[in-house]
Amino acid sequence: MTATLTSEPQQTHTRRDRIPVAVLGATGSVGQRFVQLLEHHPWFRLHEVVASERSAGKLYGEAADWRLDTLLPDAAAGLKVKSLGGELESMLLFSGLDSSVAGEAEDTYANRGAVVVTNSKNHRMDADVPLLLPEINADHIGAIEHQRRRRRGRGYIITNSNCSTMGLALAIAPIELRWGIDQLHVTTMQAVSGAGYNGVSSLAILDNVIPYISGEEEKIEIEPRKILGKWNGDSFEFAPMRISAQTNRVPTIDGHLMTISLSLRDRSNVDLAEIREELESFAGEPQRLKLPSAPVKPIHYIDLPDRPQPRLDRDREGGMTVSIGRLRPCPLLDPRMVALVHNTIRGAAGAALLNAELLEAKGLL
Amino acid sequence: MTATLTSEPQQTHTRRDRIPVAVLGATGSVGQRFVQLLEHHPWFRLHEVVASERSAGKLYGEAADWRLDTLLPDAAAGLKVKSLGGELESMLLFSGLDSSVAGEAEDTYANRGAVVVTNSKNHRMDADVPLLLPEINADHIGAIEHQRRRRRGRGYIITNSNCSTMGLALAIAPIELRWGIDQLHVTTMQAVSGAGYNGVSSLAILDNVIPYISGEEEKIEIEPRKILGKWNGDSFEFAPMRISAQTNRVPTIDGHLMTISLSLRDRSNVDLAEIREELESFAGEPQRLKLPSAPVKPIHYIDLPDRPQPRLDRDREGGMTVSIGRLRPCPLLDPRMVALVHNTIRGAAGAALLNAELLEAKGLL
Amino acid sequence: MTATLTSEPQQTHTRRDRIPVAVLGATGSVGQRFVQLLEHHPWFRLHEVVASERSAGKLYGEAADWRLDTLLPDAAAGLKVKSLGGELESMLLFSGLDSSVAGEAEDTYANRGAVVVTNSKNHRMDADVPLLLPEINADHIGAIEHQRRRRRGRGYIITNSNCSTMGLALAIAPIELRWGIDQLHVTTMQAVSGAGYNGVSSLAILDNVIPYISGEEEKIEIEPRKILGKWNGDSFEFAPMRISAQTNRVPTIDGHLMTISLSLRDRSNVDLAEIREELESFAGEPQRLKLPSAPVKPIHYIDLPDRPQPRLDRDREGGMTVSIGRLRPCPLLDPRMVALVHNTIRGAAGAALLNAELLEAKGLL
Amino acid sequence: MTATLTSEPQQTHTRRDRIPVAVLGATGSVGQRFVQLLEHHPWFRLHEVVASERSAGKLYGEAADWRLDTLLPDAAAGLKVKSLGGELESMLLFSGLDSSVAGEAEDTYANRGAVVVTNSKNHRMDADVPLLLPEINADHIGAIEHQRRRRRGRGYIITNSNCSTMGLALAIAPIELRWGIDQLHVTTMQAVSGAGYNGVSSLAILDNVIPYISGEEEKIEIEPRKILGKWNGDSFEFAPMRISAQTNRVPTIDGHLMTISLSLRDRSNVDLAEIREELESFAGEPQRLKLPSAPVKPIHYIDLPDRPQPRLDRDREGGMTVSIGRLRPCPLLDPRMVALVHNTIRGAAGAALLNAELLEAKGLL
Repeated sequence: MTATLTSEPQQTHTRRDRIPVAVLGATGSVGQRFVQLLEHHPWFRLHEVVASERSAGKLYGEAADWRLDTLLPDAAAGLKVKSLGGELESMLLFSGLDSSVAGEAEDTYANRGAVVVTNSKNHRMDADVPLLLPEINADHIGAIEHQRRRRRGRGYIITNSNCSTMGLALAIAPIELRWGIDQLHVTTMQAVSGAGYNGVSSLAILDNVIPYISGEEEKIEIEPRKILGKWNGDSFEFAPMRISAQTNRVPTIDGHLMTISLSLRDRSNVDLAEIREELESFAGEPQRLKLPSAPVKPIHYIDLPDRPQPRLDRDREGGMTVSIGRLRPCPLLDPRMVALVHNTIRGAAGAALLNAELLEAKGLL
Repeated sequence: MTATLTSEPQQTHTRRDRIPVAVLGATGSVGQRFVQLLEHHPWFRLHEVVASERSAGKLYGEAADWRLDTLLPDAAAGLKVKSLGGELESMLLFSGLDSSVAGEAEDTYANRGAVVVTNSKNHRMDADVPLLLPEINADHIGAIEHQRRRRRGRGYIITNSNCSTMGLALAIAPIELRWGIDQLHVTTMQAVSGAGYNGVSSLAILDNVIPYISGEEEKIEIEPRKILGKWNGDSFEFAPMRISAQTNRVPTIDGHLMTISLSLRDRSNVDLAEIREELESFAGEPQRLKLPSAPVKPIHYIDLPDRPQPRLDRDREGGMTVSIGRLRPCPLLDPRMVALVHNTIRGAAGAALLNAELLEAKGLL
Repeated sequence: MTATLTSEPQQTHTRRDRIPVAVLGATGSVGQRFVQLLEHHPWFRLHEVVASERSAGKLYGEAADWRLDTLLPDAAAGLKVKSLGGELESMLLFSGLDSSVAGEAEDTYANRGAVVVTNSKNHRMDADVPLLLPEINADHIGAIEHQRRRRRGRGYIITNSNCSTMGLALAIAPIELRWGIDQLHVTTMQAVSGAGYNGVSSLAILDNVIPYISGEEEKIEIEPRKILGKWNGDSFEFAPMRISAQTNRVPTIDGHLMTISLSLRDRSNVDLAEIREELESFAGEPQRLKLPSAPVKPIHYIDLPDRPQPRLDRDREGGMTVSIGRLRPCPLLDPRMVALVHNTIRGAAGAALLNAELLEAKGLL
Repeated sequence: MTATLTSEPQQTHTRRDRIPVAVLGATGSVGQRFVQLLEHHPWFRLHEVVASERSAGKLYGEAADWRLDTLLPDAAAGLKVKSLGGELESMLLFSGLDSSVAGEAEDTYANRGAVVVTNSKNHRMDADVPLLLPEINADHIGAIEHQRRRRRGRGYIITNSNCSTMGLALAIAPIELRWGIDQLHVTTMQAVSGAGYNGVSSLAILDNVIPYISGEEEKIEIEPRKILGKWNGDSFEFAPMRISAQTNRVPTIDGHLMTISLSLRDRSNVDLAEIREELESFAGEPQRLKLPSAPVKPIHYIDLPDRPQPRLDRDREGGMTVSIGRLRPCPLLDPRMVALVHNTIRGAAGAALLNAELLEAKGLL
């Protein structure tokens, strides 16, 4: 399904030549997804692939142990892998680097003047780095100016959130914007692809659930607050909501499912029909700008008793939407619901592409 | 593992002859588990198997499509299946009947003077029927006297809870007893065996999670309140806690895992170390009486970061314990934790056996 | 992936209006796949949906428990389900009927003058019914004339093979055509979707393999001989090869994988490089006619040590190709190899569509 | 189930003190299985655990990431891990070493005088090292004398076969002994545990089959010929059968299933009933000696149409039997059948224990 992500690009934005881009960490699982999604991208063209010393110098087709269910694009297969840290010709870099190296490498390239659009966690909480989710906080790109001053150049870093956070933040954004969220309980059931290709052994997860994902709960409890917060021209003000996250790994391949229960700050004029209406009508800057990777509807509300389900719903709109179902009252708080996000598309590489498209549309590349 | 449930029976209670028992719904998945667990039971002897007209008259070995991973006991294989509703010689009946027929059939046999120990949901909420969980509410058997009066005979019905409720009620009992629970959020990840042999198609659940189980959330939100409530000599007083349950089906075979977050009524003198101490030292009437199916420790607290896990922990003490891990503070309420119960043993047939053992030990058979 | 099957139809054949078609057994799993694949078909338009009495009269969107990972097409959702056996307006009928009713119903419609293109097994071995696999035996449509005479009208039945047979027959066709096959051993590992939506319970297949599929081995041992045989103008002459098939159900969703070992009749001038060359260059009538559902290459030879794999390779060319790998010598016979077919696309609904396209291209509709 | 392997030891052989043993590679998956099976062993007592430098010096309970579904035995948890190659007190060593180090380490200890009973592949084909499968070739221990002479001491190495070979060799032994086997085709469907704890990533195998296991086919094609061959007092004469093996990894946890088709050398007086009789009555030296780990019946023939199945049958007799079903004619060769072996018990650690028990019973320790 994923190959259709950009299969019908909106022609609102035309360019004679597509922008050459590099993928950092191109042989990894997020990196492979970048290579896949860039194959037919209307604005960006894969020009360079970058990986660790071990792969450098090889052809990408040899260095990458390609594991996606579409074919390795020929154009990518023939690229020679460049070494991380070395000079690059591209000025737009997509990073799927492992967090053990991403922090320094991304800073290095940004300081040299490149725009680094990263899925890695290292810089998400930096004071002048947007944690961008364009349907919600496109105006956070205001922080780029601060970052450029700090780096004394044109370069900067843009991050997207953790994969589960992405689903949660999109799912609750219409509610937060209208009524404000006070407390939120979320329990996730996350797919194995979120851990990378060798992240979860089959012996660990077949006929099993693992009720722990290192560092995940901490991210989900803080990242939505930055995403849903405000850039006041000088710093990010976090949304005041409080979140309790419990995370689990389940034997699914792609798609993070989560149960959500939350309480509202403003409980006047709230009923389920209105909440649902807000969810279904939600749209943001990517929809207005008709960005190539933007889903027509960022939120699909599914009016069936047992949905969303990872296998049936993760690929809606090329994996770029969040699906929601089972909106109903909670005996303890206000509404309860179930949400689903494709963790490696909307929750990772696809999110980064959308971020870069926003930057291009805003003239920031 | 399950075959060892009663492999080392406690010899506190001896009888010359084992009590003959019948299994109602013997060909179904709960019924098969009864047959399995009774094979080596020190107090009870499988004497009759009862099923629908379709199976009646056949040998059990032919009528039952045996699907457990231990061999069908020879003694059971040779029994002729009797028809539901007909006369039985046994006065102790274990019921794994489908809820579509359990209500009436169980009443019929109880009114004829039999003791019906059932896993079915139909009579769980009846005003004089104990929802028995002997570690917690052994004194609820006081209601038997009322029931016998109503039925004008020696017969009565004893129920055990829904499989998820069983895990939840045991996990929170020590906390409820000491501090009182006010609010509780629980999200379950339930195994396919809970739906019976043909309950979940493989095409529905492979690489998937289904965020809905019909009727399950309602049961989990009310049954623990009866279990943890009081029999006041005349009626059951429900515990005042309020519960929000969200239930999911995941691709595991046995073992319901659940994340729990709760708030306490009495928040003085509470810390995690004390809660853990209460969990680990918890014991009840089955342990004092050394009932054959009673686990030595009803609650196993596992001090590892990523436990309990269904495949690794469901078979502890023959599947009769609840495993708990990840006890930690909740940003919103008081403690959070993860609990696991073997849904077809402790959560179904094993629970019924333990109930019957209590009745025998108390002289009620 | 499957939605792209017909997304880029070849424009060699144009029509002002698409041909209206009916789907028999439209609510079942093969029927749903027909509805999905017809959504964007350039030649055929879904006009009627037919199912059993239970569904008749309802809207298709209500009657079908839609289980595919693309959305139920709106146009289909709004069709009223017609009752099997009743009058139909369409003259081209795709049948995904259960074999318990297919035999008679398909005969009825063919005798009334309709062209019935069926995936059901009932008429596959009939003396004047082609078991069509257009890359191999497009000339078998010669039997249509006989059939029309028998039925005294324009109607007739066309069948496609069993899903595993489809993969096997395509994989060995280039070898049979060049060298002739004497003996063949095949062991299949088949996906659960081959058994229909409720065909395999999750409790039966999770962490398991079932070494038996009712009736499957018999089909695989005879059907390839009709497919690879000849229509001599009067009857079908079966290919003389002898086949031993052993079939297994494994926990995969789609894609039947099989190991094959075979001996050749003509062992002169045979080496692995030549066999591989024959496999890779194989093409037939659908490729020459550029039929809309025809894969560019019916056989993908994958030159990697551990391929094909169901999840990674089943969707190549919209699920219409057979993937082959591991061609190597057999210590006992001649070559060994591994083959994969998407069982519900190339092995079922997609095969029927391709058959109908051939009929249209040949002026037989 | 596995904990019951030695739970009812035969008391034919009594000793005041159990023999102290060491496990080499004790932290790995085979090593953990050794530790588990030794917990209640009547003849052997776990005295030392040996692992790589990384683990040496730690307590076993800390060094081993215990992944079995029974609890880590307390006695083992408290042992300090010794470094591979260092001095050991035990003279009986069970080896689950990785093949990268097993060859040299096992030779070293045997040359120092220890009896090394290993599951590793390195020495299986050595000219004076028995590839022992005691039901079949207990007399191969005659080679020990040669080995001791070569090593100029009391030490020697005993190996067991590859896990799939173990199932295959046991399944065909009664047929080979009576009629002789000429040709044999086998296709395996192997569980992920065969690859060790991190051997197969979940992303590789969920909803998938991998038609390749490195080095496996070569082992299966040669090892049965040594096992079923003869020790002539001076060297091993291999059985003349020819084998074609095709191996696959499937998403099961334990239990290798295989389809087998074979031709006989002596086709007189053969019918399926006789073959089945030979399978069911098969027994060997372990049964005559009533060795503690010996199954009562090495082969269970299951007379049901769809068996054996990994999840339902792998644990028969503590995982020490081979299950066979579907014995039927092959259209090409003589009989066909399906066989199953528990790959980490009978196919690995349990086999080594049985080998050591034979050595002890024969006075060779």
